[in-house]
Formats: sequence, structure tokens, C-alpha cells
Amino acid sequence: MALLLISPKARADAWAEAFDAAGRPLIWGEAQVRDPAAITEIACWKPPEDMARYPNLRAVISAGAGVDQMPALPPGVALVRAVAPGIEEMVRDWVVMASLMLHRDMPRYLAQAGAGAWKGHPVAQSATCRVGILGMGRIGRLVAQSLGTLGFPVAGLSRSGQAVAGVQIFDASRQAEFLAQTDLLICLAPLTEETRGMIDADFLSHLPVGAKLVQAGRGAQLVLDDLRAALENGQIASAMLDVTDPEPLPETHWAWRDPRVIVTPHIGAETNAQEGARHALDVIAALEAGIDVPGQVDRQRGY
Amino acid sequence: MALLLISPKARADAWAEAFDAAGRPLIWGEAQVRDPAAITEIACWKPPEDMARYPNLRAVISAGAGVDQMPALPPGVALVRAVAPGIEEMVRDWVVMASLMLHRDMPRYLAQAGAGAWKGHPVAQSATCRVGILGMGRIGRLVAQSLGTLGFPVAGLSRSGQAVAGVQIFDASRQAEFLAQTDLLICLAPLTEETRGMIDADFLSHLPVGAKLVQAGRGAQLVLDDLRAALENGQIASAMLDVTDPEPLPETHWAWRDPRVIVTPHIGAETNAQEGARHALDVIAALEAGIDVPGQVDRQRGY
Repeated sequence: MALLLISPKARADAWAEAFDAAGRPLIWGEAQVRDPAAITEIACWKPPEDMARYPNLRAVISAGAGVDQMPALPPGVALVRAVAPGIEEMVRDWVVMASLMLHRDMPRYLAQAGAGAWKGHPVAQSATCRVGILGMGRIGRLVAQSLGTLGFPVAGLSRSGQAVAGVQIFDASRQAEFLAQTDLLICLAPLTEETRGMIDADFLSHLPVGAKLVQAGRGAQLVLDDLRAALENGQIASAMLDVTDPEPLPETHWAWRDPRVIVTPHIGAETNAQEGARHALDVIAALEAGIDVPGQVDRQRGY
Repeated sequence: MALLLISPKARADAWAEAFDAAGRPLIWGEAQVRDPAAITEIACWKPPEDMARYPNLRAVISAGAGVDQMPALPPGVALVRAVAPGIEEMVRDWVVMASLMLHRDMPRYLAQAGAGAWKGHPVAQSATCRVGILGMGRIGRLVAQSLGTLGFPVAGLSRSGQAVAGVQIFDASRQAEFLAQTDLLICLAPLTEETRGMIDADFLSHLPVGAKLVQAGRGAQLVLDDLRAALENGQIASAMLDVTDPEPLPETHWAWRDPRVIVTPHIGAETNAQEGARHALDVIAALEAGIDVPGQVDRQRGY
């Protein structure tokens, strides 16, 4: 019974310390595996090609916030997403920053600064900017709370339509209505077959003219060429993207050079190694106790 | 008994509506004054040169957040700063944005984006970045609250040393100690004789190496050449400036071109005309009732 960790060295050192302290065996890297039958869990970003090699595997734990990089797992193997409050708070911070940057016209001021131009434009109060969040999961709720406290009216679109205090929730059947009343759209949705390519020309056309877009979900959800057309015709005023398709975004891509678009290189969050190790130990304990595994993903739903 | 408003036309229209509704006389622009003795209040950014022209003047109301642009007033004339919650919230929003931008390395990512470079750097949790706020007035307290909610440890330096919930307060005698434990310094102090030129080489040298600076006070508080030297020697890692000395910052100034510095053209806040008019009506009512005037400035203290 051991966990196989596939990760960079720095993370492995932190995990080794936590596993030693808990008296649990940890193996770093497939090359170190002497007895594949002893491996009961794998923690990794991308799992080994040949998972049949591990007949007693019970769970695969993702090293990051998403699980969309994971292949189908053998039957009976639990898929577990990273559970680390630090990840959620880091993404929240990036999204709050990006939302304020678009609301306060930073793309325009950065372009002016490049030309040494001191020129103010009207300042809008946050109460005038209706925020709409796609995906009301843990991060979406944190963002809603922070932006609500700053005075933004916040609405959310969620598949479940589950109520969230202080947020106007729209279920999927009311998507057009949700978009029509969203001045600043924040995508925090997981990548699923439903959300792949979702943010396209038709989708963007339901937003008010001059809306703004914060993309912190997954690159493949946004059709970049459709965003470009929407910027050109004024439907979208500006955008901040932390995820793109492809990643890395090629050096010569138009989005790097469009002054209305700010791209950051997928830096929303980084898993804290200590938090990751603690969660993995919790997963092992839950598997042994036969109780609900923290972070287990509904493979059907995709998150 | 009338208020003289010196302002752009758009603001005057909003004030005229509010004063009409309240049945109070409003005169827009000195050219319209037929009887100077009828003027009991003046609302303006910069007051008329010849205030002796108005023998019955009781109060001068500043159109903006500061009063440092005001000359000495005749004895018996109250100096009143703008009281508009909107101003405070707008500055808070800009400061929260700027703090997150520096914390999350936006100067570096913007420079990389200019070169089309997709390259991530370690992401820090907000709990690791100790914020220090210079000036714990209304805006300082709002900023402390917002950044505290985002997980930043927050301290404040205030002349009074008055306690603020959730914030470690240092009084003026402990300035060096305050600076030594500040990773991100936010200046929100009013411009007074004490704060003019305060942020100089010596002041910056008390911060930890690699500290960051958000300047949302007044330009004349920061010695820009000393900031430049501190950036060159690594004492300061990056800065966001919404106020500079001089303003406008000349087109050829080094700060526009230094990738570690982001300058915005004094856009922290803009007085909302409706709020300004409502406050002016409250000032008139207080003067007539002989009660405390909302926003009256202690001229000795300077704020």
C-alpha cells in the first residue's frame, strides 16, 4: 500500500516530509516502483500511460484545480481533484484583480502609459457594473463574495441553479437572460463537453454592447477568433485571459498585441505542496475507512 | 443667501437639479454673481482669487477628496472637504486593484506580454504579503477591510494611533518598526507639511528589500528620483502610482517607461455630482442650524 507521486522534485520533497510524519509510504516517480501491486494511489498532473500496470489502484489524485487533462480511468478507480483552499483563494485573487482592471479601464490606461499620455476618463462606481459569473463552484462563490463586498451587483449561472446568498442565480435554461444583464462576464466553469467552445460569437452576442470578459476557466472554452471579431465590432470592450487555447499562447498570437486584451500565462493558482500532501493523506484515510473521499469527481458530470 | 458653484457644466446641471428640488438658490460661475453679498458658500476645486469680494461667506467646500489645493481662507470661513461615500469607495477599488497587481507581479507579466512571452513565476498566497497602510482615515480603513478579507495581514500607521478592528496600528513614534514589517506599502495619507516629501530614500530604506509601493495619496509626498534609485538598487521591486509630482507627469518622464512602474493619471476617484450636491445642501443646513458641519477640516491639522 503506497502512493506513487509523479511531480517535480521540489513538490516531492514537501510530500515526502508529510508522508514520513504520517508514517505512510510514498514513492516518487515510476522508475522507483519495484512492486506495482503495492501502488494503491497515484498523485499526478498526467497519469502514467499504462495504468493496467497497477492492479490494486484505488484512486488517482489530480495535482491541479482541474481534471480535464485526465484520461478515462479503469473501473473502480476514483478520480479525485486537488482540494486545497490556497488554490481557490489564489484564483479568487487573480479574478478580483482582473475584474477591477477591466472595470477601471486598465487596458486603456496601460496603452496610454506606453505613450506617456496623462489623460483621465470618467470613473465608474462598481455599483454600475453588473458582474456575471459562469460556474458557481467553490471559486465562483469566493469571487461573488469578494466582488459583492466591493459593491458590484453579482449574478451567477450554474447548472444546478442552487441558491447562493447575495447572488442572483440563473439556471442553464435562462442563459440568454443572464448574459443580457452582464456587463462583466467571469468564466470559472470547468472544462466539460458542454463548456468546450461555449464562448463563441453567438454566446458573446447575447452580452450588452461593450461588455468585458475575464477568462479564468479553461482555454478551450473560448473561441479566440470569435473574441477578436467581437472586439473589432465593439461587442466586447476588453478582456483578461489567464487561460488560452493553445497554451502556451504562441509568441506571434494577435492577443498578445491587442491593447484591449491582457494575457497572463495560466498563473491563477499554483498548488501548495503542503496542502496537496495533506489532502492526499486525507484521501488515503477516507479510502481505508470506506467513507466519502474528499474531492472525488463525478466523472459523468466532469467536475 | 446662495451657494456659488465653480465647476464644469455637467456637474452644474446635476447640482442645479438638486438645489431646485430643495428650494435653495444656486449660482453657477462667478460671472453670474450680481450681488456678492448674497453668496454665503462657495463650492469649487480652486476658489476665486479675490475672496474678499464675498463679505458674507461662511464656507468653502472642496469639490474633491483633498483640501491641499486650498489657499488660506478669511477668518470665520469654514473649510469643508467633499463628503461622498462614492469617492472613498472608488479610491478603495483602485487601491485594491493596484495592491493585487503588484502582489501578483503584473508589471512583470505585462512586460512579458509585450514580448509575447508565456512564462509563469511562483504564485504567492496573500497571507505571505504584509500590507502596511500610511494613513488610516476613512479610505485607509476601507482598504484595510478589503485586503484583510482577501487574506493579507494588514497594519496601519496613523498619527492618532487609534485602534482599528483587525488591523495592527502603529503610531508615528513606531514608523521604522512599521516600515520594517511592510512588504507592500500603501500611501493614503493627506498632503500636509509633515507628509510633503516624506517618502524619500531614507524612508524607503526602512522597508524590507524588494518591497512594493502603491501611491494613492498626493504626488508631492513621494520623491520620484529616490523611488528610481530604490528600483535600481532593488530596495523596491515595483510601484503603482496614481498621483505624481508634477501632474500631469511629462510625456518623457522615466516613470512611464520603467517596466517596474505603472502610472495612472490620478483616476482614483471622481466626485459623483449628485452626492456632492447633497453634501453641499447638508453643509448649508448645518450652518443654518448652528450644528457641526459635515466634512469641516481642522485647518491646523490639514485634514
